Amino acid sequence: MNGSENPDCPYELTNNEVVWSGRWMQTRRVQFKPKTGGQQGVWESAHRNTTPSTAPAAGVSVIARVRKEGKVFVVLIKQYRIPCRKMVLELPAGLIDEGETAVQAGTRELLEETGYTYGKVVMETKICYLDPGLTDDSQCLVVVDVDVDAPENQNPVQQLESDESIEVVLVEQSKLMDYISDLDQSVIIVEGTLLAYAMGLRLATL
Amino acid sequence: MNGSENPDCPYELTNNEVVWSGRWMQTRRVQFKPKTGGQQGVWESAHRNTTPSTAPAAGVSVIARVRKEGKVFVVLIKQYRIPCRKMVLELPAGLIDEGETAVQAGTRELLEETGYTYGKVVMETKICYLDPGLTDDSQCLVVVDVDVDAPENQNPVQQLESDESIEVVLVEQSKLMDYISDLDQSVIIVEGTLLAYAMGLRLATL
Repeated sequence: MNGSENPDCPYELTNNEVVWSGRWMQTRRVQFKPKTGGQQGVWESAHRNTTPSTAPAAGVSVIARVRKEGKVFVVLIKQYRIPCRKMVLELPAGLIDEGETAVQAGTRELLEETGYTYGKVVMETKICYLDPGLTDDSQCLVVVDVDVDAPENQNPVQQLESDESIEVVLVEQSKLMDYISDLDQSVIIVEGTLLAYAMGLRLATL
Repeated sequence: MNGSENPDCPYELTNNEVVWSGRWMQTRRVQFKPKTGGQQGVWESAHRNTTPSTAPAAGVSVIARVRKEGKVFVVLIKQYRIPCRKMVLELPAGLIDEGETAVQAGTRELLEETGYTYGKVVMETKICYLDPGLTDDSQCLVVVDVDVDAPENQNPVQQLESDESIEVVLVEQSKLMDYISDLDQSVIIVEGTLLAYAMGLRLATL
Protein backbone atom coordinates (compact mmCIF):
# COMPACT_ATOMS: atom_id res chain seq x y z
CA MET A 1 0.00 0.00 0.00
CA ASN A 2 1.40 3.39 -0.93
CA GLY A 3 -1.47 5.24 0.74
CA SER A 4 -2.13 7.64 -2.09
CA GLU A 5 -5.55 6.03 -2.32
CA ASN A 6 -6.71 8.18 0.63
CA PRO A 7 -8.25 11.24 -1.07
CA ASP A 8 -7.39 13.40 1.97
CA CYS A 9 -3.69 12.61 1.57
CA PRO A 10 -1.92 15.79 0.39
CA TYR A 11 1.12 13.78 -0.71
CA GLU A 12 2.19 11.47 -3.47
CA LEU A 13 3.53 8.46 -1.56
CA THR A 14 6.03 6.25 -3.38
CA ASN A 15 8.58 3.54 -2.66
CA ASN A 16 6.78 2.37 0.47
CA GLU A 17 8.94 -0.38 1.96
CA VAL A 18 9.36 -2.45 5.09
CA VAL A 19 13.00 -1.78 5.97
CA TRP A 20 13.11 -3.98 9.08
CA SER A 21 10.77 -6.62 10.42
CA GLY A 22 11.01 -8.24 13.85
CA ARG A 23 8.95 -10.34 16.23
CA TRP A 24 6.85 -7.45 17.58
CA MET A 25 7.32 -4.52 15.23
CA GLN A 26 8.21 -3.38 11.74
CA THR A 27 10.06 -0.31 10.56
CA ARG A 28 8.82 1.26 7.34
CA ARG A 29 9.98 4.03 5.03
CA VAL A 30 8.11 5.91 2.33
CA GLN A 31 8.90 8.82 0.04
CA PHE A 32 6.42 11.69 0.07
CA LYS A 33 5.99 14.71 -2.16
CA PRO A 34 3.26 17.36 -1.78
CA LYS A 35 0.66 17.04 -4.56
CA THR A 36 0.79 20.84 -4.82
CA GLY A 37 4.51 20.67 -5.55
CA GLY A 38 7.49 21.11 -3.25
CA GLN A 39 10.39 19.00 -2.15
CA GLN A 40 10.36 15.24 -1.83
CA GLY A 41 11.07 13.85 1.62
CA VAL A 42 11.30 10.52 3.39
CA TRP A 43 9.14 9.43 6.32
CA GLU A 44 10.28 6.60 8.60
CA SER A 45 7.85 4.96 11.01
CA ALA A 46 7.35 2.11 13.48
CA HIS A 47 4.43 -0.34 13.36
CA ARG A 48 3.31 -3.13 15.66
CA ASN A 49 3.27 -6.58 14.06
CA THR A 50 0.92 -8.37 16.38
CA THR A 51 -2.38 -6.46 16.48
CA PRO A 52 -5.29 -8.82 15.70
CA SER A 53 -7.43 -7.69 12.80
CA THR A 54 -10.46 -7.86 15.13
CA ALA A 55 -9.02 -5.41 17.68
CA PRO A 56 -10.55 -1.91 17.83
CA ALA A 57 -7.01 -0.58 18.51
CA ALA A 58 -3.60 -2.04 19.34
CA GLY A 59 -4.02 -1.43 23.06
CA VAL A 60 -6.15 -0.02 25.84
CA SER A 61 -5.48 2.20 28.85
CA VAL A 62 -7.74 2.12 31.88
CA ILE A 63 -8.79 4.99 34.10
CA ALA A 64 -9.94 3.08 37.19
CA ARG A 65 -11.52 5.20 39.90
CA VAL A 66 -11.85 4.22 43.52
CA ARG A 67 -14.07 6.14 45.96
CA LYS A 68 -12.94 6.12 49.59
CA GLU A 69 -13.98 8.42 52.43
CA GLY A 70 -15.60 10.89 50.05
CA LYS A 71 -12.53 11.16 47.83
CA VAL A 72 -11.83 9.84 44.32
CA PHE A 73 -8.57 7.98 43.72
CA VAL A 74 -7.07 6.78 40.43
CA VAL A 75 -5.35 3.38 40.24
CA LEU A 76 -1.87 3.81 38.74
CA ILE A 77 1.08 1.53 38.16
CA LYS A 78 4.84 1.91 38.23
CA GLN A 79 6.74 -0.32 35.86
CA TYR A 80 10.21 -0.44 34.30
CA ARG A 81 10.00 0.25 30.56
CA ILE A 82 12.79 -1.20 28.48
CA PRO A 83 12.49 1.22 25.50
CA CYS A 84 12.88 4.15 27.94
CA ARG A 85 15.36 2.53 30.34
CA LYS A 86 13.33 4.11 33.13
CA MET A 87 10.62 3.45 35.66
CA VAL A 88 7.38 4.87 34.25
CA LEU A 89 4.20 5.95 36.06
CA GLU A 90 1.26 4.84 33.94
CA LEU A 91 -2.39 3.97 33.73
CA PRO A 92 -2.98 0.20 33.75
CA ALA A 93 -2.78 -0.78 30.10
CA GLY A 94 -2.04 -3.53 27.64
CA LEU A 95 -2.49 -4.90 24.17
CA ILE A 96 -5.91 -6.08 23.00
CA ASP A 97 -5.97 -9.82 22.33
CA GLU A 98 -7.69 -11.64 19.49
CA GLY A 99 -11.46 -11.41 19.83
CA GLU A 100 -11.42 -8.99 22.77
CA THR A 101 -13.24 -5.67 22.96
CA ALA A 102 -11.46 -2.66 24.47
CA VAL A 103 -13.51 -3.05 27.68
CA GLN A 104 -12.69 -6.76 27.94
CA ALA A 105 -8.98 -6.14 27.42
CA GLY A 106 -8.93 -3.15 29.75
CA THR A 107 -10.70 -4.86 32.62
CA ARG A 108 -8.52 -7.96 32.14
CA GLU A 109 -5.36 -5.84 32.28
CA LEU A 110 -6.68 -3.98 35.34
CA LEU A 111 -7.18 -7.27 37.17
CA GLU A 112 -3.82 -8.70 36.07
CA GLU A 113 -1.75 -5.60 36.76
CA THR A 114 -3.46 -4.31 39.92
CA GLY A 115 -5.65 -7.10 41.31
CA TYR A 116 -8.74 -4.89 41.18
CA THR A 117 -12.03 -6.11 39.75
CA TYR A 118 -14.08 -3.35 38.11
CA GLY A 119 -17.62 -2.67 39.27
CA LYS A 120 -18.94 -0.51 36.48
CA VAL A 121 -17.85 0.67 33.03
CA VAL A 122 -18.33 4.44 32.97
CA MET A 123 -17.10 5.27 29.49
CA GLU A 124 -15.10 3.95 26.56
CA THR A 125 -13.59 5.79 23.65
CA LYS A 126 -12.86 4.95 20.06
CA ILE A 127 -9.32 4.58 18.76
CA CYS A 128 -6.64 7.26 19.13
CA TYR A 129 -3.06 7.42 17.82
CA LEU A 130 -0.44 7.63 20.54
CA ASP A 131 2.41 9.26 18.60
CA PRO A 132 1.20 9.84 15.04
CA GLY A 133 4.40 11.42 13.70
CA LEU A 134 6.35 8.25 14.47
CA THR A 135 3.92 5.32 14.57
CA ASP A 136 0.35 4.19 13.99
CA ASP A 137 0.35 2.58 17.44
CA SER A 138 -3.06 3.17 18.97
CA GLN A 139 -5.28 2.67 21.97
CA CYS A 140 -8.77 3.10 23.33
CA LEU A 141 -9.46 4.60 26.76
CA VAL A 142 -11.77 2.78 29.15
CA VAL A 143 -13.07 4.37 32.35
CA VAL A 144 -14.28 2.10 35.15
CA ASP A 145 -15.32 2.50 38.75
CA VAL A 146 -13.89 0.04 41.26
CA ASP A 147 -15.92 -0.79 44.37
CA VAL A 148 -13.28 -1.28 47.06
CA ASP A 149 -15.90 -2.49 49.52
CA ALA A 150 -16.79 -5.44 47.28
CA PRO A 151 -15.57 -8.82 48.60
CA GLU A 152 -13.36 -9.44 45.54
CA ASN A 153 -11.47 -6.20 46.18
CA GLN A 154 -10.69 -6.76 49.86
CA ASN A 155 -7.28 -8.21 49.10
CA PRO A 156 -6.43 -7.33 45.52
CA VAL A 157 -3.77 -9.72 44.23
CA GLN A 158 -1.95 -9.07 40.97
CA GLN A 159 -1.86 -11.82 38.35
CA LEU A 160 1.46 -11.01 36.73
CA GLU A 161 3.38 -12.92 34.09
CA SER A 162 6.76 -14.23 35.24
CA ASP A 163 8.51 -11.40 33.39
CA GLU A 164 6.35 -8.59 34.84
CA SER A 165 7.13 -6.46 37.87
CA ILE A 166 4.51 -3.82 38.65
CA GLU A 167 3.86 -1.62 41.68
CA VAL A 168 0.32 -0.30 42.28
CA VAL A 169 -0.33 3.18 43.67
CA LEU A 170 -3.61 4.96 44.39
CA VAL A 171 -3.44 8.72 43.88
CA GLU A 172 -6.18 11.17 44.81
CA GLN A 173 -7.60 12.48 41.53
CA SER A 174 -7.78 16.11 42.64
CA LYS A 175 -4.05 15.99 43.47
CA LEU A 176 -2.96 14.00 40.42
CA MET A 177 -1.09 16.83 38.66
CA ASP A 178 0.73 17.78 41.87
CA TYR A 179 1.69 14.14 42.39
CA ILE A 180 3.10 13.97 38.85
CA SER A 181 4.91 17.31 39.12
CA ASP A 182 6.57 16.17 42.34
CA LEU A 183 8.00 12.97 40.82
CA ASP A 184 11.78 12.71 41.01
CA GLN A 185 12.64 12.47 37.33
CA SER A 186 15.94 10.77 38.03
CA VAL A 187 13.84 7.84 39.29
CA ILE A 188 10.54 7.83 37.39
CA ILE A 189 8.91 9.54 34.38
CA VAL A 190 5.19 9.86 33.69
CA GLU A 191 3.53 8.39 30.61
CA GLY A 192 1.83 10.78 28.18
CA THR A 193 -1.80 9.63 28.42
CA LEU A 194 -1.73 9.96 32.20
CA LEU A 195 -0.09 13.40 32.07
CA ALA A 196 -2.63 14.71 29.55
CA TYR A 197 -5.49 13.29 31.64
CA ALA A 198 -4.11 15.05 34.72
CA MET A 199 -3.82 18.27 32.73
CA GLY A 200 -7.47 18.01 31.71
CA LEU A 201 -8.51 17.49 35.33
CA ARG A 202 -6.48 20.56 36.31
CA LEU A 203 -7.59 22.87 33.51
CA ALA A 204 -11.29 21.99 33.68
CA THR A 205 -11.63 24.70 36.29
CA LEU A 206 -8.78 27.05 35.33
CA MET B 1 24.35 0.78 26.80
CA ASN B 2 22.65 -2.38 28.02
CA GLY B 3 20.67 -0.50 30.68
CA SER B 4 21.37 -2.91 33.51
CA GLU B 5 23.13 0.04 35.18
CA ASN B 6 19.73 1.37 36.31
CA PRO B 7 19.30 -0.15 39.80
CA ASP B 8 15.49 -0.07 39.39
CA CYS B 9 15.70 -2.28 36.32
CA PRO B 10 14.25 -5.69 37.21
CA TYR B 11 15.86 -7.29 34.15
CA GLU B 12 19.25 -8.40 32.95
CA LEU B 13 19.54 -6.68 29.58
CA THR B 14 21.93 -8.22 27.06
CA ASN B 15 22.74 -8.09 23.35
CA ASN B 16 21.46 -4.55 22.96
CA GLU B 17 21.77 -3.69 19.29
CA VAL B 18 20.71 -1.15 16.72
CA VAL B 19 19.03 -3.33 14.09
CA TRP B 20 18.10 -0.50 11.70
CA SER B 21 19.19 3.10 11.47
CA GLY B 22 17.66 5.73 9.21
CA ARG B 23 17.59 9.47 8.74
CA TRP B 24 15.02 10.15 11.49
CA MET B 25 14.81 7.05 13.62
CA GLN B 26 16.53 3.88 14.80
CA THR B 27 15.12 0.48 15.60
CA ARG B 28 16.72 -1.36 18.51
CA ARG B 29 16.46 -4.82 20.00
CA VAL B 30 17.56 -6.11 23.40
CA GLN B 31 17.27 -9.39 25.25
CA PHE B 32 15.78 -9.22 28.74
CA LYS B 33 15.57 -11.74 31.55
CA PRO B 34 14.01 -11.07 34.97
CA LYS B 35 16.70 -10.84 37.67
CA THR B 36 14.40 -12.97 39.83
CA GLY B 37 14.46 -15.73 37.22
CA GLY B 38 11.98 -16.53 34.48
CA GLN B 39 12.07 -16.71 30.73
CA GLN B 40 14.27 -14.65 28.48
CA GLY B 41 12.49 -12.42 25.98
CA VAL B 42 13.29 -9.89 23.31
CA TRP B 43 12.16 -6.25 23.29
CA GLU B 44 12.09 -4.26 20.05
CA SER B 45 11.76 -0.48 20.11
CA ALA B 46 11.82 2.69 18.01
CA HIS B 47 13.97 5.73 18.82
CA ARG B 48 14.24 9.17 17.27
CA ASN B 49 17.67 10.01 15.87
CA THR B 50 17.50 13.76 15.80
CA THR B 51 16.68 15.00 19.33
CA PRO B 52 19.26 17.62 20.40
CA SER B 53 21.06 16.79 23.64
CA THR B 54 19.91 20.15 25.01
CA ALA B 55 16.19 19.46 24.48
CA PRO B 56 14.06 18.78 27.59
CA ALA B 57 12.12 16.21 25.48
CA ALA B 58 11.91 15.23 21.83
CA GLY B 59 8.81 17.31 21.25
CA VAL B 60 6.16 19.58 22.69
CA SER B 61 2.37 19.77 22.46
CA VAL B 62 0.53 23.01 23.07
CA ILE B 63 -2.82 23.53 24.76
CA ALA B 64 -3.70 27.00 23.47
CA ARG B 65 -6.84 28.53 24.95
CA VAL B 66 -8.86 31.31 23.41
CA ARG B 67 -11.57 33.18 25.35
CA LYS B 68 -14.43 34.56 23.27
CA GLU B 69 -17.86 35.71 24.43
CA GLY B 70 -17.41 34.13 27.85
CA LYS B 71 -16.43 30.74 26.46
CA VAL B 72 -13.08 28.93 26.35
CA PHE B 73 -11.95 27.41 23.06
CA VAL B 74 -8.96 25.15 22.36
CA VAL B 75 -6.90 25.64 19.19
CA LEU B 76 -6.62 22.30 17.35
CA ILE B 77 -5.19 21.21 14.03
CA LYS B 78 -6.09 18.62 11.42
CA GLN B 79 -3.18 17.15 9.53
CA TYR B 80 -2.52 14.08 7.40
CA ARG B 81 -0.14 11.73 9.21
CA ILE B 82 1.91 9.46 6.99
CA PRO B 83 2.62 6.73 9.61
CA CYS B 84 -1.15 6.40 10.19
CA ARG B 85 -2.31 6.99 6.58
CA LYS B 86 -5.08 9.12 8.07
CA MET B 87 -6.11 12.65 8.86
CA VAL B 88 -5.45 13.22 12.58
CA LEU B 89 -6.99 15.77 14.97
CA GLU B 90 -4.21 17.01 17.22
CA LEU B 91 -2.92 19.67 19.52
CA PRO B 92 -0.42 21.95 17.79
CA ALA B 93 2.94 20.25 18.31
CA GLY B 94 6.43 19.74 17.01
CA LEU B 95 9.98 18.71 17.71
CA ILE B 96 12.15 20.84 19.99
CA ASP B 97 15.09 22.38 18.11
CA GLU B 98 18.66 22.77 19.31
CA GLY B 99 18.86 25.30 22.13
CA GLU B 100 15.09 25.74 22.50
CA THR B 101 13.10 25.36 25.70
CA ALA B 102 9.75 23.57 25.60
CA VAL B 103 7.93 26.92 25.81
CA GLN B 104 10.00 28.42 22.98
CA ALA B 105 9.39 25.39 20.75
CA GLY B 106 5.70 25.21 21.65
CA THR B 107 4.96 28.87 21.01
CA ARG B 108 6.97 28.73 17.77
CA GLU B 109 4.98 25.70 16.58
CA LEU B 110 1.72 27.37 17.61
CA LEU B 111 2.56 30.40 15.46
CA GLU B 112 3.78 28.32 12.51
CA GLU B 113 0.91 25.82 12.50
CA THR B 114 -2.00 28.09 13.47
CA GLY B 115 -0.88 31.71 13.03
CA TYR B 116 -1.72 32.51 16.65
CA THR B 117 0.67 34.44 18.90
CA TYR B 118 0.41 33.44 22.54
CA GLY B 119 -0.29 36.06 25.19
CA LYS B 120 0.60 34.23 28.38
CA VAL B 121 2.23 30.95 29.38
CA VAL B 122 -0.09 29.32 31.92
CA MET B 123 1.76 26.11 32.66
CA GLU B 124 4.48 23.81 31.39
CA THR B 125 5.23 20.24 32.31
CA LYS B 126 8.32 18.12 32.50
CA ILE B 127 8.98 15.27 30.08
CA CYS B 128 6.54 12.39 29.51
CA TYR B 129 6.82 9.25 27.36
CA LEU B 130 4.23 9.01 24.61
CA ASP B 131 4.18 5.24 24.07
CA PRO B 132 6.65 3.68 26.51
CA GLY B 133 6.13 0.05 25.50
CA LEU B 134 7.28 0.82 21.95
CA THR B 135 9.49 3.93 22.04
CA ASP B 136 11.24 6.46 24.27
CA ASP B 137 9.71 9.25 22.16
CA SER B 138 8.73 12.04 24.53
CA GLN B 139 7.17 15.44 24.89
CA CYS B 140 6.42 18.27 27.29
CA LEU B 141 3.01 19.94 27.50
CA VAL B 142 2.79 23.71 27.37
CA VAL B 143 -0.43 25.61 28.17
CA VAL B 144 -0.85 29.13 26.82
CA ASP B 145 -3.63 31.68 26.61
CA VAL B 146 -4.13 33.43 23.29
CA ASP B 147 -5.59 36.95 23.28
CA VAL B 148 -7.70 37.04 20.12
CA ASP B 149 -8.32 40.76 20.60
CA ALA B 150 -4.60 41.54 20.30
CA PRO B 151 -3.61 43.21 16.98
CA GLU B 152 -1.29 40.32 16.01
CA ASN B 153 -4.17 37.83 16.26
CA GLN B 154 -6.67 39.73 14.12
CA ASN B 155 -5.71 37.83 10.98
CA PRO B 156 -3.73 34.78 12.06
CA VAL B 157 -1.66 33.49 9.14
CA GLN B 158 0.04 30.11 9.25
CA GLN B 159 3.75 29.92 8.48
CA LEU B 160 3.91 26.44 7.02
CA GLU B 161 6.80 24.65 5.37
CA SER B 162 6.25 23.79 1.72
CA ASP B 163 5.53 20.16 2.67
CA GLU B 164 2.98 20.98 5.40
CA SER B 165 -0.79 21.14 5.03
CA ILE B 166 -2.66 21.95 8.23
CA GLU B 167 -6.23 23.02 8.97
CA VAL B 168 -6.95 24.99 12.16
CA VAL B 169 -10.13 24.45 14.19
CA LEU B 170 -11.29 26.10 17.42
CA VAL B 171 -13.38 23.81 19.63
CA GLU B 172 -15.20 24.89 22.76
CA GLN B 173 -13.37 23.27 25.67
CA SER B 174 -16.52 22.20 27.53
CA LYS B 175 -17.67 20.33 24.40
CA LEU B 176 -14.29 18.86 23.45
CA MET B 177 -15.11 15.22 24.28
CA ASP B 178 -18.42 15.41 22.40
CA TYR B 179 -16.60 16.93 19.40
CA ILE B 180 -14.09 14.06 19.44
CA SER B 181 -16.75 11.38 19.93
CA ASP B 182 -18.67 12.72 16.95
CA LEU B 183 -15.70 12.52 14.54
CA ASP B 184 -16.29 10.32 11.52
CA GLN B 185 -13.51 7.76 11.98
CA SER B 186 -13.48 6.89 8.31
CA VAL B 187 -12.17 10.42 7.77
CA ILE B 188 -10.21 11.49 10.86
CA ILE B 189 -8.81 9.96 14.07
CA VAL B 190 -7.90 11.81 17.26
CA GLU B 191 -4.38 11.83 18.71
CA GLY B 192 -3.84 10.35 22.17
CA THR B 193 -2.69 13.41 24.11
CA LEU B 194 -5.73 15.36 22.99
CA LEU B 195 -8.13 12.51 23.78
CA ALA B 196 -6.70 12.05 27.29
CA TYR B 197 -6.87 15.80 27.89
CA ALA B 198 -10.52 15.80 26.84
CA MET B 199 -11.18 12.85 29.15
CA GLY B 200 -9.65 14.76 32.07
CA LEU B 201 -11.86 17.77 31.31
CA ARG B 202 -14.89 15.49 31.23
CA LEU B 203 -14.13 13.43 34.33
CA ALA B 204 -13.10 16.37 36.53
CA THR B 205 -16.72 16.75 37.45
CA LEU B 206 -18.01 13.20 37.02
